[in-house]
Amino acid sequence: MTQLQPQSFVSNFSSQAEETDYFDYFYNEPGSEPGTLNIEPTARPSRIILIDYDEDDAIRKVDISPNALLPYLGKNSVSWMDVQGLGSEEVLREVGTIFDLHPLLLEDIVNVPQRPKLDEYKDKLMFIAHMVRRHDGVDGFVTEQVSFILGKNYLVTFQEEELEDCFDLVRERIRNNQGKVRQSKADYLAYLLLDSLIDGYFPILEHYEERIEVLEEKIISEPDRKIMQEIYSIRRELLALRRLLWPLRNVLNLMIRDDHDLLTQEVQIYFRDCYDHVIQILDILEAYRELASSLMDAYMSSVGNKMNEIMKFLTVFTAIFNPLTFIAGVYGMNFENMPELKWSWAYFACLGVMFSIASIMIFLFWKKGWFKTTYSLDEE
Amino acid sequence: MTQLQPQSFVSNFSSQAEETDYFDYFYNEPGSEPGTLNIEPTARPSRIILIDYDEDDAIRKVDISPNALLPYLGKNSVSWMDVQGLGSEEVLREVGTIFDLHPLLLEDIVNVPQRPKLDEYKDKLMFIAHMVRRHDGVDGFVTEQVSFILGKNYLVTFQEEELEDCFDLVRERIRNNQGKVRQSKADYLAYLLLDSLIDGYFPILEHYEERIEVLEEKIISEPDRKIMQEIYSIRRELLALRRLLWPLRNVLNLMIRDDHDLLTQEVQIYFRDCYDHVIQILDILEAYRELASSLMDAYMSSVGNKMNEIMKFLTVFTAIFNPLTFIAGVYGMNFENMPELKWSWAYFACLGVMFSIASIMIFLFWKKGWFKTTYSLDEE
Amino acid sequence: MTQLQPQSFVSNFSSQAEETDYFDYFYNEPGSEPGTLNIEPTARPSRIILIDYDEDDAIRKVDISPNALLPYLGKNSVSWMDVQGLGSEEVLREVGTIFDLHPLLLEDIVNVPQRPKLDEYKDKLMFIAHMVRRHDGVDGFVTEQVSFILGKNYLVTFQEEELEDCFDLVRERIRNNQGKVRQSKADYLAYLLLDSLIDGYFPILEHYEERIEVLEEKIISEPDRKIMQEIYSIRRELLALRRLLWPLRNVLNLMIRDDHDLLTQEVQIYFRDCYDHVIQILDILEAYRELASSLMDAYMSSVGNKMNEIMKFLTVFTAIFNPLTFIAGVYGMNFENMPELKWSWAYFACLGVMFSIASIMIFLFWKKGWFKTTYSLDEE
Amino acid sequence: MTQLQPQSFVSNFSSQAEETDYFDYFYNEPGSEPGTLNIEPTARPSRIILIDYDEDDAIRKVDISPNALLPYLGKNSVSWMDVQGLGSEEVLREVGTIFDLHPLLLEDIVNVPQRPKLDEYKDKLMFIAHMVRRHDGVDGFVTEQVSFILGKNYLVTFQEEELEDCFDLVRERIRNNQGKVRQSKADYLAYLLLDSLIDGYFPILEHYEERIEVLEEKIISEPDRKIMQEIYSIRRELLALRRLLWPLRNVLNLMIRDDHDLLTQEVQIYFRDCYDHVIQILDILEAYRELASSLMDAYMSSVGNKMNEIMKFLTVFTAIFNPLTFIAGVYGMNFENMPELKWSWAYFACLGVMFSIASIMIFLFWKKGWFKTTYSLDEE
Amino acid sequence: MTQLQPQSFVSNFSSQAEETDYFDYFYNEPGSEPGTLNIEPTARPSRIILIDYDEDDAIRKVDISPNALLPYLGKNSVSWMDVQGLGSEEVLREVGTIFDLHPLLLEDIVNVPQRPKLDEYKDKLMFIAHMVRRHDGVDGFVTEQVSFILGKNYLVTFQEEELEDCFDLVRERIRNNQGKVRQSKADYLAYLLLDSLIDGYFPILEHYEERIEVLEEKIISEPDRKIMQEIYSIRRELLALRRLLWPLRNVLNLMIRDDHDLLTQEVQIYFRDCYDHVIQILDILEAYRELASSLMDAYMSSVGNKMNEIMKFLTVFTAIFNPLTFIAGVYGMNFENMPELKWSWAYFACLGVMFSIASIMIFLFWKKGWFKTTYSLDEE
Repeated sequence: MTQLQPQSFVSNFSSQAEETDYFDYFYNEPGSEPGTLNIEPTARPSRIILIDYDEDDAIRKVDISPNALLPYLGKNSVSWMDVQGLGSEEVLREVGTIFDLHPLLLEDIVNVPQRPKLDEYKDKLMFIAHMVRRHDGVDGFVTEQVSFILGKNYLVTFQEEELEDCFDLVRERIRNNQGKVRQSKADYLAYLLLDSLIDGYFPILEHYEERIEVLEEKIISEPDRKIMQEIYSIRRELLALRRLLWPLRNVLNLMIRDDHDLLTQEVQIYFRDCYDHVIQILDILEAYRELASSLMDAYMSSVGNKMNEIMKFLTVFTAIFNPLTFIAGVYGMNFENMPELKWSWAYFACLGVMFSIASIMIFLFWKKGWFKTTYSLDEE
Repeated sequence: MTQLQPQSFVSNFSSQAEETDYFDYFYNEPGSEPGTLNIEPTARPSRIILIDYDEDDAIRKVDISPNALLPYLGKNSVSWMDVQGLGSEEVLREVGTIFDLHPLLLEDIVNVPQRPKLDEYKDKLMFIAHMVRRHDGVDGFVTEQVSFILGKNYLVTFQEEELEDCFDLVRERIRNNQGKVRQSKADYLAYLLLDSLIDGYFPILEHYEERIEVLEEKIISEPDRKIMQEIYSIRRELLALRRLLWPLRNVLNLMIRDDHDLLTQEVQIYFRDCYDHVIQILDILEAYRELASSLMDAYMSSVGNKMNEIMKFLTVFTAIFNPLTFIAGVYGMNFENMPELKWSWAYFACLGVMFSIASIMIFLFWKKGWFKTTYSLDEE
Repeated sequence: MTQLQPQSFVSNFSSQAEETDYFDYFYNEPGSEPGTLNIEPTARPSRIILIDYDEDDAIRKVDISPNALLPYLGKNSVSWMDVQGLGSEEVLREVGTIFDLHPLLLEDIVNVPQRPKLDEYKDKLMFIAHMVRRHDGVDGFVTEQVSFILGKNYLVTFQEEELEDCFDLVRERIRNNQGKVRQSKADYLAYLLLDSLIDGYFPILEHYEERIEVLEEKIISEPDRKIMQEIYSIRRELLALRRLLWPLRNVLNLMIRDDHDLLTQEVQIYFRDCYDHVIQILDILEAYRELASSLMDAYMSSVGNKMNEIMKFLTVFTAIFNPLTFIAGVYGMNFENMPELKWSWAYFACLGVMFSIASIMIFLFWKKGWFKTTYSLDEE
Repeated sequence: MTQLQPQSFVSNFSSQAEETDYFDYFYNEPGSEPGTLNIEPTARPSRIILIDYDEDDAIRKVDISPNALLPYLGKNSVSWMDVQGLGSEEVLREVGTIFDLHPLLLEDIVNVPQRPKLDEYKDKLMFIAHMVRRHDGVDGFVTEQVSFILGKNYLVTFQEEELEDCFDLVRERIRNNQGKVRQSKADYLAYLLLDSLIDGYFPILEHYEERIEVLEEKIISEPDRKIMQEIYSIRRELLALRRLLWPLRNVLNLMIRDDHDLLTQEVQIYFRDCYDHVIQILDILEAYRELASSLMDAYMSSVGNKMNEIMKFLTVFTAIFNPLTFIAGVYGMNFENMPELKWSWAYFACLGVMFSIASIMIFLFWKKGWFKTTYSLDEE
Repeated sequence: MTQLQPQSFVSNFSSQAEETDYFDYFYNEPGSEPGTLNIEPTARPSRIILIDYDEDDAIRKVDISPNALLPYLGKNSVSWMDVQGLGSEEVLREVGTIFDLHPLLLEDIVNVPQRPKLDEYKDKLMFIAHMVRRHDGVDGFVTEQVSFILGKNYLVTFQEEELEDCFDLVRERIRNNQGKVRQSKADYLAYLLLDSLIDGYFPILEHYEERIEVLEEKIISEPDRKIMQEIYSIRRELLALRRLLWPLRNVLNLMIRDDHDLLTQEVQIYFRDCYDHVIQILDILEAYRELASSLMDAYMSSVGNKMNEIMKFLTVFTAIFNPLTFIAGVYGMNFENMPELKWSWAYFACLGVMFSIASIMIFLFWKKGWFKTTYSLDEE
């Protein structure tokens, strides 16, 4: 039995630059046997990391086999089995057998992504939520499904990836015996993990706040067609976020409303805090969605305004030069009897008239305020 | 009594290229007798295919007459009577008599399409759902109503067509004794069929996901008027899909909420899984509907942008050539006293002035960034 | 006591081409006595047509006086008193007295149109619904309020007009002893009439389906301003239809939910069928409303597209002829020293340059694909 | 004790042409003492008009002092105290003391306008509603808050103005012993007044119906920018109306749902009629709001259509004259060697070519149908 | 123990012109310990101001240390501890310990801003609301979170700033023994403060009413692109206001619905008044939001109208001068045989024809009404 090693808590960060498919969903081949596990070829092999702790001690075992978990289940200590990677059907089925998971439940855990949901069983509580994090460098976010099985003395979590998760600070706290986690039961651990997961949505919100702010400025100063794409992207991604959070809100509502044998009332207060956070996130999401929709309106009228500016510009040119060109045309006619042509000062008079007409035109347009706006077009 | 023959499970695929009428609905002539069966002239004659199985044995009988079903009803084995084709009034009425169906219930089964619904009777449960599948080659989907009558030891299904259904994998499983179907009762069979039917919606969703993705790219790169039609079609078809699924959601909700004598609690867990799938499909549908609506906004502003590009182009031409043509006009005037005309270098000076004006204009437009956008128009 | 005469069932069809006011509603002069009957001057005089039947016999009496109804009320047979025309205050008041109707109830019956509603009294059930039928020749529909008073052995109906109603098939069935109507009580008769009335909405839906389909094609092929009017009319009329059906849905919901002494459970199953039909109609209505709204979006972007086509056309002309006219202007100048003018081939060279410029322009526009769309404009 | 004088029932009509502020609301200075009465300087001094009646007798006293009301409260007759004008704090406070009104309740009565609401107290029921009436001559409506205090034998009403109200017909009926008012209790009187008040909304609805109809015609025949303002005004005013009616609906719903000691079941039937009217008004309001919104869509596309017409006009002129002017320019060039210039019939040939080009252009535009629409523009 | 000094009630007003971030929200670093207090570096140090009063006496102590509060808690008098500034973690934690606050509760108080909410504990009630006030000089508003802890004999409030609050009038009333505050318990004090806070929303509403009115006029008289920004700002800020008020509505609803040991029924009547105010504010907010959205529609169609005006102007110029310039061009051609050129009156005839064409054009445009609208453009 090894003592927990600090360095092993450090997760390996690796860049994943693949395009996010925000409206992905899992589905079985129609007509296939219920409970079929769909192992994607690209899924990482499953590793199990066990952290077992009580007030006095905390051990951590990496790459433990499912059967080696059995001794820990009987103990009074809290056992957190973290299954990372959904690529090994055998391992997952063994875990399913050990914890007596319904085939449909295992299907929901493995066949990602699923909608957040809460299933209650006699001796365990199962819920699904989604971790989100920012892409490095590009806009948007990536999601990863995390499934929780909360039993009397244990918590099993299933993650799609073994890399990067938002649970390191919790692991740290278990290892260093910070806070009350080592004094608490598995339900408090479930809360801590879910809370970390939910807090991970806030930086994403901030990301969208920034993008909306950039758009607000851009629409006024330099409306171009990239704005349309950007607004569309934002609407699309906020929609995707909402799809993750609305059902999560219901999950949490069920957790804090009903009596559950596995959740002490004290820990329900904590879950209520989670619920408040989800509500707050949804609240902001809805506000952003409305803002994005108002921005679209603003952009559309801005396109119309821009057209008006261009039209004014065109009209000014046409209105000034059309009369002048006409006058020039008149005196370019070849009639034999055109008395003006012979007056020696006629040419200069004609130029003078032309100049006057142009001046009057410019003055009229200036009075209408067309040049003011034409100028502001220049600034853009 | 023939043993089940594998080849008989293969359904005959035939192309049906008729135009889908997504908002079709059945209605009787106002004032007609309740319970009137409306047999459409084009409806296929009704065939009954019986599959009767228990843990030990499974038989299949094709083109059995309604009365020949009676002996199977008394047995302990599960009897699945699949009525394919709604064209033979006599057969349908006989089936109605054997299973003691209310005239209105039989009306709902035969007069397709109806809204999905659940009717509960003392000794049976009736529900209606709709199968969807992709057209071959063209966009959109076709639907087919499936009515289920679940009794104690039997399940009767009514399909519009005898061709193509999504139940072949279930038949296969019964024949090969795969999974737990042969160990289970008629309610589990009902679940299996409904689950297959619902899973059939996912490929349709994928079809719309692809179409939306194509549109997203097209709106940016080459907005033309076909986009408008395509967005309209997508909105229309998603609306039609939603009409099928919202009531189905209610049907399933009733099935999993209430106590039903005919559904064991164990099988209700499975129906709950169906319910989750329908919720997920509706969720995605709503997201697609919002995306399609955002796309329409994006397309509209894109049309406006395009107009701005064209207007800029027109304005550039007008603004450059109007002053030049005016100057040419001035020196085309026939005044006798126009001193410039006599200077030997005047013509070249005039050309130089014209060139300067054109250059200045082009420079000003370039500074305004009009050429940048004009150029991007070229790329489209 | 006359035997029922077949010819008397034939209703007199007369064309009523008056403009429908879809958002009409009745209101009393503010402050007037509750229970005031408002007899419109144009209202037809009230006629009472009695049909009294039991399993053995069915009689019909036309233009019976209210007091002559009394003997039928005490009998075991079912008496259907059909009051056609709301123009005779005295007759209506007498009917009110005979059936002991609350003044406010009578007010609702006479002061048409009212919102559909259900009022339950100790010994009777009153509900209001609206018959719809197509105008002859023109678009839209006309409505007529039908009020039902269902008592133990009788049913009283009040119609605005004595002409055309949708109850003839029911009358036929009573006369010919078809179906189970003669074996049933007054509640079944009420169902039959309401069902006929509701089925009358389906042809109206079909009418709107056709109009929407015509619009879908027209928007693509020949968008003109009549489309805008047509979409507006459709939205307006669908809105009017919804106003009739939403409250009717509630009426039916109350009828099938609660226990009513006057409705046997067996007949409630039939009313449930009515309810399903109303739900289905509302469902389709909502779908059509969404389609009409999507059509408006499509039309608006189509107007924008059309403008782009026109602008392209204008720009092509301007961009081709402006440079050419400028060149012609240059060689029309009268400078003495313009060497090109003297070269003998200069004119032809100039024409050649002009032709080249025009060709290049046309080629550039063709490459941009402007002619393709300009051409499609021609097809419209 | 004076007998009721007929002439005193006539209210003084005076024109109030001030601009209506539809979204007005009352608020106290933040932090002020709860129960502070805010007497506006322009508020009319409060007059109390007492009408006391039973089956046998009815008296009316004008400008009675609050304390003089006391003797009437103990009697079995119904006392209607109508407080007109909210300008005399002392009078209002005295009334408050006599009827034992909670300070917050008095605040709601005096500090107008408040939202309609129902407050129930041990021995009295208080509700607030708003009278509406048309401005003379101008569009829109004015509102006036009416607060009702219903006690066992009395009804107190508070109105903002002593002028014009919609209760005169009720006063008439009390005076002339028409209807059942004199045989009924205070709750029936409350119903009569509320019913008059609600019926006053119907003429306002009619006013909007007319304005919408005018707009429907105008949008087709002569779209101008006043339409936009008018649609906006209508939307704004309908919104204001809805704000008055939604809470009133809740007030009435509470009155007919719950058991109230002060409302007999018989009178609750009458209030139910009020409720039906409010529902009907709200129904129509929502329909009008949707129509106004559809009208805005129609107007926007009509603006776009108009632009297309103008553009076509411009394009026709440009496309016809640009080629002609170019040809004239070519033969205005001064090249020495231009053989055509010397041919004697060249000028006429040139004119002929010009004429042909113009004809072909016009023919092409005519075939495209541009002139048809251009013409319809003329009609507008 | 100092007597309350009047001058100490005066708050120090200081201008805070920083940009308001309406959609700000607090979040912890994901994975951090629950109950972590996040003290912002710019937060003001925490001061505690105690006001302790009963019917007879009222004292005020400034800058009291948390422990010095203890003696007051045991007394029967009401103690209001006002903690101003959230910058001193130690002080806040001490307060938390004294009042036995749950770590999560303290977190919500300190980590501002939070969503309004109500948490009920055995012996105390905690709720969060937000004070709003106008910026000096600029548009918009600033918010400040106020947290209330209501115990049996005490009320603790936490404010972000020690400056400016809306509670001065309440302090005044305590000091001067005005109203019933000194005769009441802590729950009445809580009401008074919350009421002041809510009343502070009304001036903000008025601010938006004014801005909307300005826009309504501007859209008609001088539509420019600042309107678009202004509408967007208003929509954004109203959205932010709604986010503060919707949850506050729920808080108040919970307070007046349920039984709370700490709220007497008498004071609940007062809270009900607060609830009514919040409902009224929300009501108006929604109306303003709809108006702002209608204004956007109006603005968009106004942009389109403006474009039509510009286009008409351009078309008039083009349509008048194009034919004239063409004619001039014709007679500028150099054909040798152009008989008209030799007629002595031809030049004047030509000028006459030109004049006629221009006149006819102007007359036609005038008849179409184009000049009328062109003129109204001038006025803008």
